[in-house]
Amino acid sequence: MGGSLAAALRRRNLATSIIGYDSDPDAGARGVRSGLLDAAASSCSQATHQANLVVLAAPVSAMPALLSEIAGELRPAAIATDLGSTKADVVDAARRALGPSFARFVPAHPIAGGERPGLEHADPDLFEGRTVVITPAEETRADAAARVEHLWRSCGAHVVRMDAGEHDRMLASVSHLPHVVAFALVAHIARQPDAQRRLELAGPGFRDFTRIAASSAALWRDIALANRAAIGAELRALMAELQRVDQALSAGDPRVLQELFELASRTRRRLNGDTDGG
Amino acid sequence: MGGSLAAALRRRNLATSIIGYDSDPDAGARGVRSGLLDAAASSCSQATHQANLVVLAAPVSAMPALLSEIAGELRPAAIATDLGSTKADVVDAARRALGPSFARFVPAHPIAGGERPGLEHADPDLFEGRTVVITPAEETRADAAARVEHLWRSCGAHVVRMDAGEHDRMLASVSHLPHVVAFALVAHIARQPDAQRRLELAGPGFRDFTRIAASSAALWRDIALANRAAIGAELRALMAELQRVDQALSAGDPRVLQELFELASRTRRRLNGDTDGG
Repeated sequence: MGGSLAAALRRRNLATSIIGYDSDPDAGARGVRSGLLDAAASSCSQATHQANLVVLAAPVSAMPALLSEIAGELRPAAIATDLGSTKADVVDAARRALGPSFARFVPAHPIAGGERPGLEHADPDLFEGRTVVITPAEETRADAAARVEHLWRSCGAHVVRMDAGEHDRMLASVSHLPHVVAFALVAHIARQPDAQRRLELAGPGFRDFTRIAASSAALWRDIALANRAAIGAELRALMAELQRVDQALSAGDPRVLQELFELASRTRRRLNGDTDGG
Repeated sequence: MGGSLAAALRRRNLATSIIGYDSDPDAGARGVRSGLLDAAASSCSQATHQANLVVLAAPVSAMPALLSEIAGELRPAAIATDLGSTKADVVDAARRALGPSFARFVPAHPIAGGERPGLEHADPDLFEGRTVVITPAEETRADAAARVEHLWRSCGAHVVRMDAGEHDRMLASVSHLPHVVAFALVAHIARQPDAQRRLELAGPGFRDFTRIAASSAALWRDIALANRAAIGAELRALMAELQRVDQALSAGDPRVLQELFELASRTRRRLNGDTDGG
């Protein structure tokens, strides 16, 4: 996603120079060759030292170490931001690592999804029409937040501000819970002795439903742990709902099923005017 | 789906004449006007009386009544089949309704999905490369089963034969369970006081994941009830899996999550070589 942001900034002439750092040195070299980056830094602190805007595009589990690396290197007027999927843990880590510079850190989460990893799949239009949540803390300077907000707006995104905890609770229900459920459902099927035969009978609905279960296991393990309290609460609420479905099935009660399915169907259709039957 | 089968047969010159019956008389008239049907019958028995092949394209809850209607009207050499999503209940209803003619009834389930309802969305290529399950009973005549199998092959489908009970158990896990879970998850979110705000933060992953929850509530209520024993068993197995995830989250145990997510991710990627990150 960092690559797509670089491509979006370049396309719109929003940066005079883009310096990349990746723990894989080859990725940086490829970024320079493809014209996506002006230069590849040999360390995170070297890149930070030259930047007016530092963007941490890394899994949430890598944030504490990265924040410590940039802490001493931020230029006096530089702003830092991130693209992490959870926010309360990143805010905590940033507050601890950055000291007084924390006021110039603007936590952000672009809600894209479905993008392919790797600089070679960088898409300058990835954020067009998408939502980006920014979660400034009490200490965050208003001008820093405004600058990050403006950056995302310039890339075509719709920006929403909220508290980091609220972000994490909301994302737990519309992103983390679906991922966890898709992983659990596919794992449940994979464990059956006739798994192969079952999967051969899976239609396109199943493929859509479980596409998110093809996501990186390590990435999602870390997101799940970073937001475990909120995800646990969502999971228990969903299990209570499934329990009610199971009881309605046992009792052969059409009314409970009808009400539940209708509520969901109505809500889902409203979401983006789908007309497909499934 | 009946409309798509008519379109597929027409395109491939597999029927000399296609007579349609729909409980909505207007649908039949539209089918004739568009050239999809040669004629619209005014009743199910009238259509059956003229047919060499009778295809029941209706929700599973409508099958018992339709089977009773066609029972006395099947021509001596005619074959009947259906497109129902569950099979054991349709087989039971057909055995009861058709008497000796049951030997000429070939239960079938084309696994398509995502198709739009209505004759105007009939797609002659809907079954190209898709799987159609046929579940002949002990009494089913071999020539009848072979003819229905040949019909589907001619429409581009891959045909699999299995027992009706096995079909229902397998579809419970790869189709009915995902639908029930998607309905329950969307309903859970819809019940929250801040549902609107949460849904505004839903990314494309959530939209894919919950698309099947936009399906018809009445249709799925009936499928759920028709296959309730198998769906209940799948639901309880999934809840046990979710329970383990919840425990791992509470304990902050990365190992259990990593193993589960990896198994799912590997299985899902194998399914059709997806490379998207989510």
